[in-house]
Amino acid sequence: MLNFAVIGTGWITDSFIESAHATGAWKLVGVYSRAQETASAFAAKHNATATYTTLDALGAAADVHAVYIASPNSLHFEQAKAMLSAGKHVILEKPATSTVAEYDQLHALARQKKAFLIEANRHLQERNFKVLRDSLGRLGPLYGASLNYAAYSSRYNKVLEGETPNIFSLEFSGGCLVDLGVYPIAAAVALFGVPKAQSYSPVFVKTGADGGGFVRLQYDGFAVDINQSKIYTSAAPSEVYGEKGTLIANGVTDIDSVVFLDARTKEKTQLAGEKAKLNLQEEAAEFARIIQEKDTKEKTRLEEMSRAVLCITEDLRKQNGIVFDVEKN
Amino acid sequence: MLNFAVIGTGWITDSFIESAHATGAWKLVGVYSRAQETASAFAAKHNATATYTTLDALGAAADVHAVYIASPNSLHFEQAKAMLSAGKHVILEKPATSTVAEYDQLHALARQKKAFLIEANRHLQERNFKVLRDSLGRLGPLYGASLNYAAYSSRYNKVLEGETPNIFSLEFSGGCLVDLGVYPIAAAVALFGVPKAQSYSPVFVKTGADGGGFVRLQYDGFAVDINQSKIYTSAAPSEVYGEKGTLIANGVTDIDSVVFLDARTKEKTQLAGEKAKLNLQEEAAEFARIIQEKDTKEKTRLEEMSRAVLCITEDLRKQNGIVFDVEKN
Repeated sequence: MLNFAVIGTGWITDSFIESAHATGAWKLVGVYSRAQETASAFAAKHNATATYTTLDALGAAADVHAVYIASPNSLHFEQAKAMLSAGKHVILEKPATSTVAEYDQLHALARQKKAFLIEANRHLQERNFKVLRDSLGRLGPLYGASLNYAAYSSRYNKVLEGETPNIFSLEFSGGCLVDLGVYPIAAAVALFGVPKAQSYSPVFVKTGADGGGFVRLQYDGFAVDINQSKIYTSAAPSEVYGEKGTLIANGVTDIDSVVFLDARTKEKTQLAGEKAKLNLQEEAAEFARIIQEKDTKEKTRLEEMSRAVLCITEDLRKQNGIVFDVEKN
Repeated sequence: MLNFAVIGTGWITDSFIESAHATGAWKLVGVYSRAQETASAFAAKHNATATYTTLDALGAAADVHAVYIASPNSLHFEQAKAMLSAGKHVILEKPATSTVAEYDQLHALARQKKAFLIEANRHLQERNFKVLRDSLGRLGPLYGASLNYAAYSSRYNKVLEGETPNIFSLEFSGGCLVDLGVYPIAAAVALFGVPKAQSYSPVFVKTGADGGGFVRLQYDGFAVDINQSKIYTSAAPSEVYGEKGTLIANGVTDIDSVVFLDARTKEKTQLAGEKAKLNLQEEAAEFARIIQEKDTKEKTRLEEMSRAVLCITEDLRKQNGIVFDVEKN
């Protein structure tokens, strides 16, 4: 059993706790929040025994083996650094850090402390994402992919009213690319490897952050096109194209349909199995396995993907003048 | 009544004749083919009275007011030039010409001869395309569009077997961009005007031509992303995004569904009417009207769109080293 604490008390943390408990491998023992009231309320909700209002206190808690961090993006680095310094394993919500430099610092620290640092790319652990990945061989030579994650966020209403929600805030290292875009970008890296080049046509919102737009990842002989947005909704599926046919998934997360469309016969074959009831359960189970079995090979593979995605988003931001406050000093 | 002759005896010419006759405005009087046998068979099939095996003979036919040209792309220029020189109106299948320079020559000749030169962008004349165009105001500020025309062509089987069908031949000015890509590109120009810049990530096939890939058209503040292919199939719809919602069409041609998806209420509204039974009928009716009413304003608007699309595809070809044989001298 892995005892864990959480930093960040939003809905995604609720989901992770529920999913982690469902695996039988994790036990929530502590809740961190700067505000005691928030920590106590969240701990009570999830039957956690301890609360912490400083990172030092959480770091000193001997019964905490790992910490799940799902705070605003810009806070990930300092919080993860404190936890790794204290020898805790860290499960870090995406995007892991604001910059590649921050990620590299955390990575070096984790190695030094022999702690595991894992970015919570939950979609890459989904059973049906693995079905998609394992079905690429059906396509023959690859001709491209169109990956989509575009859904209007109710928080965009706030932006239109003149507010700056964290997720649309450069102060909190927000914006669509690092919030939603990382799902299809990570999917592309997991499916096809690191692209040779990338470009982005962002739509900017009033806060100065990117609200969505098209990303192109260029590979040898084909490209991956990504439509990602928090300011408009797309009904398009995600597709991978090859000489022998097309793989059509309902998306790059929460996949419940992966259809192979034969180019010549036009026959359709459903390849997906039933998806997990809790959409963070697969990652919670896998991350526990990696930590408990000390599977450094798989850990390294995930780290390389995380870093590759950060390199891509950082480059795309630089190309388009999207600068986070943490980068200004 | 406009008497017309046809150059090119493929299925698209069958369709145009049937559609033209259905409008009541056109009457087929002649068929051209270099081979008398082909001309005679096609004329018999469509009850045409005359056949021609030379462009000079067709040009000299006093009862022919207009000529519909649907030959391999590389032949359009010389054939249209001969017909315009003889004072005939010309309906030219897309792509009008191999190059912008050719188009400009034909355009100058048409003006000199007071003849109409109209590219058969049939989809822009569809009732439901106009519904899509006229519904853009529902979206508020525009955030982008994703336009798709990707369908596996059975002729690609021939390419894989080592043959070079016209449509995949650089000798015949073929390739996906100028064959299928022009539909979504022309749609974008009709909906949003001329883009500031464009890029293309082609997938090349064995013949050296482009088989498909992603096109990006950059506008002020948003982009249009195009997925076009003859070597793979996409099930994705075509969509236009704005602050207030998304317009979702089943495609950019043969549109029978245009749904407005409200971003906030998620309510869907079907805006499309019934589509025409014959998919070239709307263009046949409109082109007859333009010629008969001497509607030079609309003619000029269509010419400008045709030229803009050619400028875009020529630039995209140059960026990617796609050179037609006619450009090599």
